[in-house]
Amino acid sequence: MWDQLWINADLATMEPMRAAYGAIPDGALAVEDGRIAWVGPRAKLPDAPEALARQVRDAGGRWMTPGLVDCHTHIVHGGDRAREFELRLEGASYEEIAKAGGGIVSTVEATRAADEEELLDSAGRRLDDLLAEGLTTIEIKSGYGLDPETEAKMLRVARRLGESRPVDVRTTFLGAHALPAAFKDDKDGYIDHVITAQLPRVAEEGLADAVDAFCEGIAFSPDQVRRVFEASAKLGLPVKLHADQLSDLDGAALAASFGALSADHLEYTNEAGVAAMGRAGTVAVLLPGAFYTLRETQLPPMDAFRRHKVAMALASDVNPGSSPVTSLLLVLNMACTLFRMTPEEALAGITINGARALGLADDRGSLRVGKRADFVLWDIETPAALAYRMGWNPCAGVVRGGQVVR
Amino acid sequence: MWDQLWINADLATMEPMRAAYGAIPDGALAVEDGRIAWVGPRAKLPDAPEALARQVRDAGGRWMTPGLVDCHTHIVHGGDRAREFELRLEGASYEEIAKAGGGIVSTVEATRAADEEELLDSAGRRLDDLLAEGLTTIEIKSGYGLDPETEAKMLRVARRLGESRPVDVRTTFLGAHALPAAFKDDKDGYIDHVITAQLPRVAEEGLADAVDAFCEGIAFSPDQVRRVFEASAKLGLPVKLHADQLSDLDGAALAASFGALSADHLEYTNEAGVAAMGRAGTVAVLLPGAFYTLRETQLPPMDAFRRHKVAMALASDVNPGSSPVTSLLLVLNMACTLFRMTPEEALAGITINGARALGLADDRGSLRVGKRADFVLWDIETPAALAYRMGWNPCAGVVRGGQVVR
Ligand SMILES: [Zn+2]
Ligand SMILES: [Zn+2]
Repeated sequence: MWDQLWINADLATMEPMRAAYGAIPDGALAVEDGRIAWVGPRAKLPDAPEALARQVRDAGGRWMTPGLVDCHTHIVHGGDRAREFELRLEGASYEEIAKAGGGIVSTVEATRAADEEELLDSAGRRLDDLLAEGLTTIEIKSGYGLDPETEAKMLRVARRLGESRPVDVRTTFLGAHALPAAFKDDKDGYIDHVITAQLPRVAEEGLADAVDAFCEGIAFSPDQVRRVFEASAKLGLPVKLHADQLSDLDGAALAASFGALSADHLEYTNEAGVAAMGRAGTVAVLLPGAFYTLRETQLPPMDAFRRHKVAMALASDVNPGSSPVTSLLLVLNMACTLFRMTPEEALAGITINGARALGLADDRGSLRVGKRADFVLWDIETPAALAYRMGWNPCAGVVRGGQVVR
Repeated sequence: MWDQLWINADLATMEPMRAAYGAIPDGALAVEDGRIAWVGPRAKLPDAPEALARQVRDAGGRWMTPGLVDCHTHIVHGGDRAREFELRLEGASYEEIAKAGGGIVSTVEATRAADEEELLDSAGRRLDDLLAEGLTTIEIKSGYGLDPETEAKMLRVARRLGESRPVDVRTTFLGAHALPAAFKDDKDGYIDHVITAQLPRVAEEGLADAVDAFCEGIAFSPDQVRRVFEASAKLGLPVKLHADQLSDLDGAALAASFGALSADHLEYTNEAGVAAMGRAGTVAVLLPGAFYTLRETQLPPMDAFRRHKVAMALASDVNPGSSPVTSLLLVLNMACTLFRMTPEEALAGITINGARALGLADDRGSLRVGKRADFVLWDIETPAALAYRMGWNPCAGVVRGGQVVR
């Protein structure tokens, strides 16, 4: 007997099928030991529901999707950048903003100054916004400490978020995010520090599930990134990369050459880079919230991703400077409106392809037998509504590992 | 003795003062008979709070703003356009979309087919999203009936929304929104019908507080609009206009020449039109959700509005075709990000200037003695945060006419 059997739901399984969204109208889904034990049309159930499961749950005709996955976030950070946002719009000069404590420096300072409880509280409130929409897995990066203590603190907070809330947290060490003032004009020296002082510590404490870097003129060069990735490989840690967001540095190809889980942003990625990602199985993580906030005009090479069969994931970023958004549903809309993704591609981006970007596609991200029973019920008439509407939340229930958590 | 005295709040009064947002730190606000009886710094209260009011309420150090006003919505409508949104992104041709029932025609059909209870239910759910963010006044248009019965039905539903929920509804008759199939190729004939069959009926039944029209190549000409406005004037109904959204037809000047409450959209408005609005006191209602959804590139003449002292309001639109958004906070962010409004201008756009666009600025829209006690408490550190963040809702309480409604 199954633990649970959900009936009377239209399933958007997000499995490859002829039907869009891998849809199974009037479907049923069984849960056993926190995993999906059966998925199919209700009419194909081998017996009466009550004879099959200890608990039969009626989904009320709602749509069911996999639990949402947010595969790129900076959700743990001190302070916010509301005043900087305002100053810019009031026409303040770069100097005035810097003087008022603007820029990533201000987030680094605020993150260093905050204690773990403060970071847990502020990030937790942001996380609650995402959880209300059916999030079940989130990636959280460090990168506002830029010193061993604060980087470790951020990652400890990330782990604690996963203990205090019904969500799986995957952590990413991002020491190579920006150059701290202590290493002014010495990027190579800072990379040495990342490799010898920060990375070993977070690895030793088991705080990082992956390693990320920011490859850009305003951040670190491909050679510097390569050194971080080589050190990560020695520690057995998978890598990913903030690549080609503002200019084409061949970041996508660099990421692919290390078999990176994902390359992220990618507005300026060239076709050879996309092809390399396709061969390596590196996921394209697109961040339309940052594109929107920065008023970018260069679109990521969407057609090239499709042509080279690069999986496209979407993420919120939750970046205090460039993407202060805590709604994956809004990100869906932006991906469609701004990047011209289809609603089906967009939904795949925050389910199966989000899972793929975290190396978890075998375990979650679609409604398939054997995967974790992470799923969401929605008060919608068609899955496209999730991307079409803005500023609502039709989430009507969340199940994680077979437990109703909302 | 006052009925209520709110203390321990930072007030964003939105009154003209030296301080941004008309801010009064550590302020107090008294309510008597549903109206604001006293506003100022707590330290200036004439006596101890308990000696001044029957009820003393502690706002917990939160920010307080006026209740939000959404001055342009199509929130009452049948169906949605999610499938059309999806078809477009899948590359469907115009014919395919029309065949699948796309376009405004589909909304007209769905609105005609729906009964009052259905419209009340669907619009009510959309309205609840806005109410959760502190909305206290909303304008609701007809315009998807295009026949006397359905236009009246839409406006009755609008009135009923104001009875079933804690919100003031101002209704607008928008018969001249689009050309119904029955009048194919006969726009003048349809305008006759609007003036002789629709307008008198809704006026007689007291269903319309104002009259609107859509002046555009794809809709009605300035001459046709003029006829609608002249008929409205005879009935004593104020007017407003969808003007210059997709092209410059001198719509703003036309609206101003009738002393319109507002001209709305205005992306293509020329400077003479702005100047005329300034002289007439016609409010510019900006709709960044539509600009975003339609991926427009022509910005409204923001600097001209400022130069000619035209009040700028913001609204959600809640338009199923071009702005399916039910969050005024998201609209704030879009106004800042896309139209480069300051957060203070944007907040004025959904408070005092929203009220002005409805002819209600003497009664609400700011925290001033004598105005209705409509206000919102926010869990924010600075009012700029309301525009900076996306996908959250820091609304911590709503008071309408002195009653706590949330
Ligand atoms: Zn990032
Ligand atoms: Zn409109």
